[in-house]
Amino acid sequence: MAGNSFGQIFRITTFGESHGAAIGVIIDGCPPNIVVDIDFIQSELDKRKPGQSKITTQRKESDTVKILSGIFEGKTTGTPLTMLIPNEDQRSKDYSHIQDKYRPSHADYTYQTKYGIRDYRGGGRSSARETAARVAAGAIAKLYLKQLGIEIFAHVSSVGNIGSPNLGDLPINELLVIREQNIVRCADPATANQMIAYIDSVRKDGDTVGGIVSTVVKGVPPGLGEPVFDKLHADLGKAMLSINAVHGFEYGSGFAGASMRGSEHNDIFINPEKAAQTLKTLTNFSGGIQGGITNGMDINFRVAFKPVATIMRSQNTVDIAGKETQITGKGRHDPCVVPRAVAIVEAMAALVIIDHYLRNLAISNS
Amino acid sequence: MAGNSFGQIFRITTFGESHGAAIGVIIDGCPPNIVVDIDFIQSELDKRKPGQSKITTQRKESDTVKILSGIFEGKTTGTPLTMLIPNEDQRSKDYSHIQDKYRPSHADYTYQTKYGIRDYRGGGRSSARETAARVAAGAIAKLYLKQLGIEIFAHVSSVGNIGSPNLGDLPINELLVIREQNIVRCADPATANQMIAYIDSVRKDGDTVGGIVSTVVKGVPPGLGEPVFDKLHADLGKAMLSINAVHGFEYGSGFAGASMRGSEHNDIFINPEKAAQTLKTLTNFSGGIQGGITNGMDINFRVAFKPVATIMRSQNTVDIAGKETQITGKGRHDPCVVPRAVAIVEAMAALVIIDHYLRNLAISNS
Amino acid sequence: MAGNSFGQIFRITTFGESHGAAIGVIIDGCPPNIVVDIDFIQSELDKRKPGQSKITTQRKESDTVKILSGIFEGKTTGTPLTMLIPNEDQRSKDYSHIQDKYRPSHADYTYQTKYGIRDYRGGGRSSARETAARVAAGAIAKLYLKQLGIEIFAHVSSVGNIGSPNLGDLPINELLVIREQNIVRCADPATANQMIAYIDSVRKDGDTVGGIVSTVVKGVPPGLGEPVFDKLHADLGKAMLSINAVHGFEYGSGFAGASMRGSEHNDIFINPEKAAQTLKTLTNFSGGIQGGITNGMDINFRVAFKPVATIMRSQNTVDIAGKETQITGKGRHDPCVVPRAVAIVEAMAALVIIDHYLRNLAISNS
Amino acid sequence: MAGNSFGQIFRITTFGESHGAAIGVIIDGCPPNIVVDIDFIQSELDKRKPGQSKITTQRKESDTVKILSGIFEGKTTGTPLTMLIPNEDQRSKDYSHIQDKYRPSHADYTYQTKYGIRDYRGGGRSSARETAARVAAGAIAKLYLKQLGIEIFAHVSSVGNIGSPNLGDLPINELLVIREQNIVRCADPATANQMIAYIDSVRKDGDTVGGIVSTVVKGVPPGLGEPVFDKLHADLGKAMLSINAVHGFEYGSGFAGASMRGSEHNDIFINPEKAAQTLKTLTNFSGGIQGGITNGMDINFRVAFKPVATIMRSQNTVDIAGKETQITGKGRHDPCVVPRAVAIVEAMAALVIIDHYLRNLAISNS
Repeated sequence: MAGNSFGQIFRITTFGESHGAAIGVIIDGCPPNIVVDIDFIQSELDKRKPGQSKITTQRKESDTVKILSGIFEGKTTGTPLTMLIPNEDQRSKDYSHIQDKYRPSHADYTYQTKYGIRDYRGGGRSSARETAARVAAGAIAKLYLKQLGIEIFAHVSSVGNIGSPNLGDLPINELLVIREQNIVRCADPATANQMIAYIDSVRKDGDTVGGIVSTVVKGVPPGLGEPVFDKLHADLGKAMLSINAVHGFEYGSGFAGASMRGSEHNDIFINPEKAAQTLKTLTNFSGGIQGGITNGMDINFRVAFKPVATIMRSQNTVDIAGKETQITGKGRHDPCVVPRAVAIVEAMAALVIIDHYLRNLAISNS
Repeated sequence: MAGNSFGQIFRITTFGESHGAAIGVIIDGCPPNIVVDIDFIQSELDKRKPGQSKITTQRKESDTVKILSGIFEGKTTGTPLTMLIPNEDQRSKDYSHIQDKYRPSHADYTYQTKYGIRDYRGGGRSSARETAARVAAGAIAKLYLKQLGIEIFAHVSSVGNIGSPNLGDLPINELLVIREQNIVRCADPATANQMIAYIDSVRKDGDTVGGIVSTVVKGVPPGLGEPVFDKLHADLGKAMLSINAVHGFEYGSGFAGASMRGSEHNDIFINPEKAAQTLKTLTNFSGGIQGGITNGMDINFRVAFKPVATIMRSQNTVDIAGKETQITGKGRHDPCVVPRAVAIVEAMAALVIIDHYLRNLAISNS
Repeated sequence: MAGNSFGQIFRITTFGESHGAAIGVIIDGCPPNIVVDIDFIQSELDKRKPGQSKITTQRKESDTVKILSGIFEGKTTGTPLTMLIPNEDQRSKDYSHIQDKYRPSHADYTYQTKYGIRDYRGGGRSSARETAARVAAGAIAKLYLKQLGIEIFAHVSSVGNIGSPNLGDLPINELLVIREQNIVRCADPATANQMIAYIDSVRKDGDTVGGIVSTVVKGVPPGLGEPVFDKLHADLGKAMLSINAVHGFEYGSGFAGASMRGSEHNDIFINPEKAAQTLKTLTNFSGGIQGGITNGMDINFRVAFKPVATIMRSQNTVDIAGKETQITGKGRHDPCVVPRAVAIVEAMAALVIIDHYLRNLAISNS
Repeated sequence: MAGNSFGQIFRITTFGESHGAAIGVIIDGCPPNIVVDIDFIQSELDKRKPGQSKITTQRKESDTVKILSGIFEGKTTGTPLTMLIPNEDQRSKDYSHIQDKYRPSHADYTYQTKYGIRDYRGGGRSSARETAARVAAGAIAKLYLKQLGIEIFAHVSSVGNIGSPNLGDLPINELLVIREQNIVRCADPATANQMIAYIDSVRKDGDTVGGIVSTVVKGVPPGLGEPVFDKLHADLGKAMLSINAVHGFEYGSGFAGASMRGSEHNDIFINPEKAAQTLKTLTNFSGGIQGGITNGMDINFRVAFKPVATIMRSQNTVDIAGKETQITGKGRHDPCVVPRAVAIVEAMAALVIIDHYLRNLAISNS
């Protein structure tokens, strides 16, 4: 009800503020007997952590994860799995200037109005730091999905007006290698270079810029997703829209599909293996999901991120007494959030897929 | 869990198949003492019902609603409010040709694979007929929100490549009058004429086309929406993506925001009334929502619908035995779904807003 | 949230008032491909319906069930299964005398206070008539459990101070035959006769009396139930306590266990089949549940019902204006509720077991 | 779904194993602006902690609580409040003798069967140590309820066959003083002495004994509780039955009510203050709850605890390979759990009441 939990069977609850003692996550409903690869979890967190390159915030956090409960002799036990990420670099004084002012396009005003109190340091609970907890939980989900042959890949497909060409149909392990060879996490190297140069120039301007993260999920069996309200793409959409700064979600043909005709948009069924129940479609405007349920084709979707609200320029605003004033961004902030957001998008996708996989078990085995 | 319920406090569960005895909805958690205006509910259903104009399906359904429980002497009692809409025009034989074939880009294959059984008549549960139940529930929600001064307006802003210009800032009651003066439900009359002509030509081609519905919600108080996962726009996104044929959702700046800079995107706070807690913003790229919580500005969002999958042309497909075959649309279908979808989008928006309004009561009064 | 739903995966929502058009139930999450035996559902309802014998209310309701959705060609489809039971014998005028008065130990005062409105006719939503909807849903659950070899048996083990001796270990199908041979539904014929005579004398006094229903569930596999809060017996307890007039629940050793010593209470494990994972226990003070999870032994529990509040005598009370007054029961009421409650207890047990069975599928198959 | 959460609005999730790094709890949905009195939380934990007297286990744990998130400048912020209790006295080797054996009437066999893995040290997740987390969360709930004038009092009313007389109608603050003057936590000093002597003799026998905890809640406003399934007493019952070792729950007249007549059981309404909506009842067999909703009278209920399963005697059992063997309790265990359980019962009652109080806000303010 209070909005800090996600998922039905594989259910996570995140906690913690940007400048409190720690952030963390409980997974309730984690399947037992998953071998917990702590190095893998840490490597996922490293993709989201601050200070990883010149185009991210220079705030230093090692984001070292510690498992408090739910594993025994290296395996999950089916009991709540708790992970803790202590906060290290808490320069709370960086935030004293916002104690009494509402930062434009931040959550200061809405939190204060809703709760009558807010932890203003670094945005408190509204800080994107919260998403580290999601990445940790998503890593556990990925460990499980990997056993089932389900793989998730996201990359930065657009920054400002710079867009990546179509990636073709490379295997995910190859795409991952290419993506990790550049700091912007675009799987097209030439585009990546342009993006990096652009972000760097925006940063020097004291400004920020938005971008788009594109995702593909391979190896998903047919049958995942629940009609009517819990369609798989509806839950993916909610998951993505819950990430800080996301303003749009589309899957399959997306917004472009709105100007297409049925005769070109319909995905024609074929049966290349000539066996019932192993159908493919010639095209995939459905994005792997029909009637809210996976059809076995690749899932694909795109997520739009607005520019980061904290800029290194003076802006007009209003203080908590209602008086008009000015504010200037201080501290260390991201000029563009999408390079770090790739890990968050993948994590949220993993959380949606594992949850629907487990939900479907109760039907497919009943 | 099985996906036929929506909402936390104002929680609806819909039921019924396209060609069964009836469809309907239960609202559990409806506030007591709402005066139930049955004519209003029916008028909302009439905007969604088939056969209303030459550019919708010619299937005839009066969609007459009957209230089975939850009201006493004309008012809601706080107990489950059940509404039933009997199915009238059930030409099930229209569907015998799809008993053994999977229609392209429909849910036939995915339902059959997931459940091992499906009611193939008219798509059964996957039919958009289910959305009539949402419209009925949404009408109850609107009756409640109206008392609070919260109003919702949606219209068709795009069909194929024909887009409506910006509507300016007319009051919602005026926009509604203009919209209802044309059968495509676009609030710009000149654009409406173009859209109608285009849909008619598409229909004569035996083809279908997609479109976009744009929505504004006025009068929403600050404070609605729950961090972290149940951000108001995340729940709006899920609500919209759960509507049949929806492939995309964006709010505020949306996908366009991804190519903007922070310095142009930030919504500067002002205080025109010079009273604390009555702030406005100069621009509204945030779409009325910051950190997932309403800030008191108008909420706005856009929803992309793909073209209807049933076309009056022969298409290749596969039958349930795995054999490749052909299929041709029969029966009576919509060439474009957005004119009828306007009522569904408004209903789902009303359901999200009332639910978050009630959720917030527990916080704001605690 | 509003309390009219029960279960997580096999989730029912009941609706309807005693004197409205109908009562009914939606099952969301019903497994697909259950063959729906409508005669069985009706026979379950017949055990609960009024007017069945001289020791029940003489109100006449056939309680004929109609299925509105969720089945196709005689089988469940996995979509919401809706059942409707029209109200027939609605002598609303029987209740005009309570329109302005609060009946002692009824829900009139609490509903009026909570909602500011109430449907006073026959108790409206607080009427035990609502439990017919539970019995219908429980019958679907039983059809599914039967396939798995899980059987449920309840009987009246106590009325007033008249208690039944232990039944021994007869098979459930034999117990059912014995129980249905008398109108009080006690499986010990001699005790049954005493109970019937006693209830009849209480009825002639214009009074009512309470009783106890005892239940056994056989054939439950080990592993059902979730730690920590959703222990199987906790969910059984909640289910039983949600039945009108229930004031107590105990399982296994129950309240008697509170005065026992560990050395006599502990259930010693044995392995009669000499195969791992097929353990039995010598005694069963645990009632088939250890740590909240079934161990494969019979589940047993007891449910205490208070006497029916409506008596045919004058009682002091207060009216809705706060004035002290008198009230006398009118209409047709049960002198003792337990003979009809047997069907409700079995239904609620079936709903808990099927839900936990399906919940466990997601774990045991993960 | 996986059973480690409780509550709808004020929702807690507990985590941690007996011999892991820590146990703890997240509260999601905690009202903002509660002044957090850490000393009070600790004093509640001290009533549950081991080693507090000669009639409890001699295991030493300070159970020192640490707040990780959700407070700012001493007040709750409405964000997830996380409390951690590190495990200190982890003599895991005490448990090596149960690694391969199933302890009678423990959860070893059922956990192993359900999950295929178990943390056997001290019972892992099934240990009553988990309830410390509930006590911490319950303390926060009590701080909130105290502001509303709602007070909860539980005491040991029975150990073995030694029962306390009725306590009369003393104020709760006086009852608390009396109760805390003896180590068994019975508010009748003479009975307390008998109980202590009896428990001590049972302990010397290497045996254990059960008991009953009785509870009263004063100051509850009318209107709390939701029909039909979430009746207040049904949720109280579930809460109590979820506590380790509980085998029975009754409220108001309880099991005794089953042998009463309506004419003696009905609670007659009176209006001593001669103002509408401030009714009282002459008797309180309803236990303060009618139709599942509070009527403003005191809530009262009783909870039966079975004897602790670990005894200092040799017992027959079966090992994980299915071989019959013997086992003898080692380590430090409670001869009787009820003196420490008093704090747990109060905490669970507080959690139910606060949750229903907040749930009712959405109705009473709508």
